[in-house]
Amino acid sequence: MEEKLRELKTRLGEIKDIETAASVLAWDQMTYMPPAGTAARAEQLATLQKTAHALFVSDEIGHLLEELQTETEGLDYDSDEASLVRVTARDYERERKIPDWLVAEMAKATALAHNAWVQARAESNYPHFQPHLQKIVDLNIQMAEALGYQGRIYDALLDLFEPEMKTAQVAQVFDELKTELLPLVRAITEEKDAVDDDILFRDYDEEKQWAFGLEVLRQMGFDFERGRQDKSAHPFTTSFSTNDVRVTTRVYRNRFRTALFGSIHEGGHALYEQGLRPVLERTPLCEGASLGIHESQSRLWENLVGRSRGFWTFYFPRLKEIFPEQLDGVDLETFYRAANKVEPSMIRVEADEVTYNLHIFLRFELENDMLEEKAKLSDLPEAWNAKMKDYLGIVPANDAEGLLQDIHWSSGTIGYFPTYALGTLLSVQFYNQALAEIPEIPAQIERGEFAPLRTWLQEHIYVHGKKFTPAELVKRVTGSELSARPFVEYIRAKYGDIYGL
Amino acid sequence: MEEKLRELKTRLGEIKDIETAASVLAWDQMTYMPPAGTAARAEQLATLQKTAHALFVSDEIGHLLEELQTETEGLDYDSDEASLVRVTARDYERERKIPDWLVAEMAKATALAHNAWVQARAESNYPHFQPHLQKIVDLNIQMAEALGYQGRIYDALLDLFEPEMKTAQVAQVFDELKTELLPLVRAITEEKDAVDDDILFRDYDEEKQWAFGLEVLRQMGFDFERGRQDKSAHPFTTSFSTNDVRVTTRVYRNRFRTALFGSIHEGGHALYEQGLRPVLERTPLCEGASLGIHESQSRLWENLVGRSRGFWTFYFPRLKEIFPEQLDGVDLETFYRAANKVEPSMIRVEADEVTYNLHIFLRFELENDMLEEKAKLSDLPEAWNAKMKDYLGIVPANDAEGLLQDIHWSSGTIGYFPTYALGTLLSVQFYNQALAEIPEIPAQIERGEFAPLRTWLQEHIYVHGKKFTPAELVKRVTGSELSARPFVEYIRAKYGDIYGL
Repeated sequence: MEEKLRELKTRLGEIKDIETAASVLAWDQMTYMPPAGTAARAEQLATLQKTAHALFVSDEIGHLLEELQTETEGLDYDSDEASLVRVTARDYERERKIPDWLVAEMAKATALAHNAWVQARAESNYPHFQPHLQKIVDLNIQMAEALGYQGRIYDALLDLFEPEMKTAQVAQVFDELKTELLPLVRAITEEKDAVDDDILFRDYDEEKQWAFGLEVLRQMGFDFERGRQDKSAHPFTTSFSTNDVRVTTRVYRNRFRTALFGSIHEGGHALYEQGLRPVLERTPLCEGASLGIHESQSRLWENLVGRSRGFWTFYFPRLKEIFPEQLDGVDLETFYRAANKVEPSMIRVEADEVTYNLHIFLRFELENDMLEEKAKLSDLPEAWNAKMKDYLGIVPANDAEGLLQDIHWSSGTIGYFPTYALGTLLSVQFYNQALAEIPEIPAQIERGEFAPLRTWLQEHIYVHGKKFTPAELVKRVTGSELSARPFVEYIRAKYGDIYGL
Repeated sequence: MEEKLRELKTRLGEIKDIETAASVLAWDQMTYMPPAGTAARAEQLATLQKTAHALFVSDEIGHLLEELQTETEGLDYDSDEASLVRVTARDYERERKIPDWLVAEMAKATALAHNAWVQARAESNYPHFQPHLQKIVDLNIQMAEALGYQGRIYDALLDLFEPEMKTAQVAQVFDELKTELLPLVRAITEEKDAVDDDILFRDYDEEKQWAFGLEVLRQMGFDFERGRQDKSAHPFTTSFSTNDVRVTTRVYRNRFRTALFGSIHEGGHALYEQGLRPVLERTPLCEGASLGIHESQSRLWENLVGRSRGFWTFYFPRLKEIFPEQLDGVDLETFYRAANKVEPSMIRVEADEVTYNLHIFLRFELENDMLEEKAKLSDLPEAWNAKMKDYLGIVPANDAEGLLQDIHWSSGTIGYFPTYALGTLLSVQFYNQALAEIPEIPAQIERGEFAPLRTWLQEHIYVHGKKFTPAELVKRVTGSELSARPFVEYIRAKYGDIYGL
């Protein structure tokens, strides 16, 4: 068994190297690549993905897995070895179903689509992006058919991001959330003058914002020897090893929240990646359990930590040192309330905690319609705007702040958005569990001490890498299933307080 | 033939994609990668290089080449098709001789050595680097043995960078140069007070230097839609397609020459890469003919253009606008003479035109000694310092400004240095030819008009990519062979004038 495991790991390590190279190329494309580099980059990414895919679905790996599945039967389910074989076999079975040409086509289509999306968004020109989206929807349908599904076609794609999650379960949780959130948003909107956030739209020097973001990341525990932050149009986190984790954010002079909460959010993802066990390096286990679990980590830091009164008890005095004029006469409570203002708005990534999930419901429903070909892509702007009106009571002035705002479809991903909402729900479940075990966490946050919380996350979540399915991990950490309830209770308490409901 | 050519190009395109991915990873390592990323990056580079190598030396490519060599016999030697088959077959024959493990070992060794070199240089700690150098020398000896050679072992490695060039020919040209340069350097050193360059060591704001470098690059014709400039410890140029060419430089407040001449030098390389024919993209022909030919382009712009009186006739008034205090009371002639001060110095990349080649003689001789195992690596600092004394009359105060100054050995390359001197000689041969065909070039340069020169280079050199061997290209462009004579005459005239010899 030892020798076969070593052979498997060698092969998987080389595949991971090639996948990581693709991640470096993608990072470069989003951060520094000159505009004309796109076409060649598309070819390069397609070749890397095709090469990695071909190496992974080889018969040799199939044979090794088959033999090792038998030989690891006696091992502990949680052991590195049994987990590696189990998880790799699941991935292998799935990847074998995807033809090589589809991998290459998708890589090529998405690299071109990314550029078209950047331009379309800049010009608010959806027709420029529509043919690329059509190509991506078509390829996703072919992908889903190749993967197979029992319920809805969406199941096949959702499973890529959130293993074993079903569309029906998502729809049910979302329905439960809707019942709670829609009346709450209406109630808050009626009290909208209770919170004024004008102070956050004053003129904040970009370099000082950047430096403050780095300071917060460092304090959270992000290790700059093993990572860095750069700028990109859309914030993201990517990892080239546990020792090289990159985050990005964007900075606007007149929108203070954007850069900082972008950094904290991506910082939450990055702590997860930097906290994976080095012994799992260069194996398929050396990543987050799922996108939903990953998002639970970013949301936990962004919302439960970064938007908490305790966090600003520590950081507000510091922020006043950096921006004495902008925050002249502003007190902690005013700042805290401003940072948490609830207001239906156009842009998902800038949405507050309460309205955020409404943006996800919309995308989840439209994606299902696209895959089931219930809607023509030429009608998508109207469909988008109609749902914005229904859920948020507002309508985008143009497609740049409407359906062109997100990078995801241009990256070829459909079925990804629900994981944001699932992660948001899980962030509260995990945080509640941490508080139950370490009641001092809120007091520690007030002193800027994030290490105990981070260590708890390390020991309960990061340490497992991708060994467990999301459902297994949630059960193991919290003792419960995924649930909307803790999130709803958290939101009610926090915003009941702020808005006096 | 069409179909086989298409098949060959598809395979070569994918190999090029993987090689380019490695270039992106290397660029990232030199510019932005966090320190702890090194070990994983080493694995990634090793895997990419191993994968590209394995794909290239496949039997399928061998068969295709064999058949196509016969089928392209009737084609024009210069045609894209015949050239692709001829050049690829030559590369194939060479690469088949290199075992897979050696490619992977070299990639891994050099990625680790790079980091060790950075640290060793920072601490002037040669012993920290020595074991890495030993590994690299050993691997290079094994490489040379695998490749085979008839004369000296150095021939096998030199051929990797300068196809068909022999060690004996280099030694002969270098001896001829030595005979001319050593007395000239002595004569100039006696007149050393004739030129004062103190003005170049005043305090020049780094951001303004950076902006001026970008301005010059743009004026030279570097296309920033298809490239960019970043900072790195050692300036370099790399290309990810003709539409994505990256240069780097470094900026010091008190050393004005470093950043600007670094930018112009790399800009010369970059114009070559941006000027290759798009139809050759993703084939082995889409690169410079050799390192020597590449260096002729960087040296031509750096020295024959950038250090000319005409260039500063145009740029000096602009520079005075940017740095009015630093250049207060300085006139064009004083600045021109300062920019061209000849002075034996420690650092090759900062050396003037006259002493530059002496640094190369030293490295060429030490590399031969290392490969022929005539010297122990522990004695290398002494050997280096002794040759510095012989050729330049000065001795480094420490190894950081001695044998640790260059990146090359840490990158695994031995046999590369002579191409700098060869390129320097060729730069004059090519420039003389351009002047013979377009006598207005010096007057155009005085007006900041670089397009005619660039277009001439485009039409006579860039356009051929790697179709021809260096000797073929030099013959085709200038009608002559490689020769030290034009360089010697240029140097005598220019510095005879400046130093009144």
